[in-house]
Amino acid sequence: MANKEDILIRFGRRVRELRAERGYSQEAFAHECELDRTYVGGIERGERNLALRNIERIAETLGVTLAELMKGL
Amino acid sequence: MANKEDILIRFGRRVRELRAERGYSQEAFAHECELDRTYVGGIERGERNLALRNIERIAETLGVTLAELMKGL
Repeated sequence: MANKEDILIRFGRRVRELRAERGYSQEAFAHECELDRTYVGGIERGERNLALRNIERIAETLGVTLAELMKGL
Repeated sequence: MANKEDILIRFGRRVRELRAERGYSQEAFAHECELDRTYVGGIERGERNLALRNIERIAETLGVTLAELMKGL
């Protein structure tokens, strides 16, 4: 998958898309996730190589499975 | 999902299952992933909160998408 965009960029875009679909502002979403707003901003910009526990927290807040969150990535 | 088993345990079991299905020893798999064998052992035992870049590396070595890797978790 060497020609693909960086996984962090793809993941961040996916989080932003699902978060916006649900009508969350970045701030409200961060609050629901119990993550810092600047951290969530960094995730959405593809700047964070986040780990499984936080990925799960994001999936739970979005109301999707991990497989759904990763769909198309 | 508070009643679910820890995500690290579930993820590790999934990696072990797919790795074994493909006939990889843990050592050969670690070599293909360019990860340390003890690190891969820790992942499979659910002791590692690994991050996206290593998750992607594992998916690529297993020949599955990230969504397939996360299926059922």
